[in-house]
Amino acid sequence: MATLDREVAVRVVLQQCLHAKLQVKPQDENSDAEWVEIQRGMVVYVCFFKGSMKDIIPKIVHSLLNVKLSESDSGKRVSITELPGDVLIVPQATLGGKSKGHYMQYHSNASKEQGIELYDLLIAQCQKELEAHPKWLESGAVLRYGTYGNRQVLKLDTNGPYTHLLEF
Amino acid sequence: MATLDREVAVRVVLQQCLHAKLQVKPQDENSDAEWVEIQRGMVVYVCFFKGSMKDIIPKIVHSLLNVKLSESDSGKRVSITELPGDVLIVPQATLGGKSKGHYMQYHSNASKEQGIELYDLLIAQCQKELEAHPKWLESGAVLRYGTYGNRQVLKLDTNGPYTHLLEF
Repeated sequence: MATLDREVAVRVVLQQCLHAKLQVKPQDENSDAEWVEIQRGMVVYVCFFKGSMKDIIPKIVHSLLNVKLSESDSGKRVSITELPGDVLIVPQATLGGKSKGHYMQYHSNASKEQGIELYDLLIAQCQKELEAHPKWLESGAVLRYGTYGNRQVLKLDTNGPYTHLLEF
Repeated sequence: MATLDREVAVRVVLQQCLHAKLQVKPQDENSDAEWVEIQRGMVVYVCFFKGSMKDIIPKIVHSLLNVKLSESDSGKRVSITELPGDVLIVPQATLGGKSKGHYMQYHSNASKEQGIELYDLLIAQCQKELEAHPKWLESGAVLRYGTYGNRQVLKLDTNGPYTHLLEF
């Protein structure tokens, strides 16, 4: 069995994709829905727990950008910066859920204010770190992200999602 | 923070979907790829760790079928049997990964033989329990599943994946 014996501040689920499309603004009476899209790359679902501090963000960014989970054309596992591939960050508060009877409770989740602050920081630092990789920057790869607090309407096309859990 | 202080035998990630399509047999020189499809319902990614025993399967099935994670037409959270909705089970050994430096290691994963045995049992018991719910059975909802050990080529269309982690 896998032993878990520590506190978790941030939970991340990663899925590899060929294409992903995320709604960032729902349709309203005046305008159509707005979407962001990525091509081949990685979808990052993220949830912050109570007690998450800003100083954990560099560690998360370092992992996301360096862990070898993407499949190169030759079938080798490489990092997203080595691929180089797109990144889509999706806020996903439901990842903080804990089952209690037949219901899920989210009592450990960070407050909305705290979550937004950490989320904005995560995106800013991801963008900065990605741009520090010349191969990534020159490839024209992009970072896209969802709107914190929105419903994350998502369409995903994969060649195997290769789903991973990372906890910080 | 969320405190984790126990061993994990089975890790499950759940995503809600409007439609999902999973390859169950890749294309070869003699035949096209084969796919299974579900409509509105739930995608269940599952990973078994070393030490997982058969007696955990009923507990997992009970949770999957009763936890209220699906959104009804009126926006209420209901179980997949109450919805009633389709279920797609996807073997996902990558969920057992643990990062070590920039690589993922899968040392805690169950052996392929053990995994297949538990996976087959999970599917059989899910099918049996789903059919025991008259509303689910009469709705024409279906259970579909991937081929253990294959690459899980997946296409997913959601109205919000509402991603949850369950550990047993």
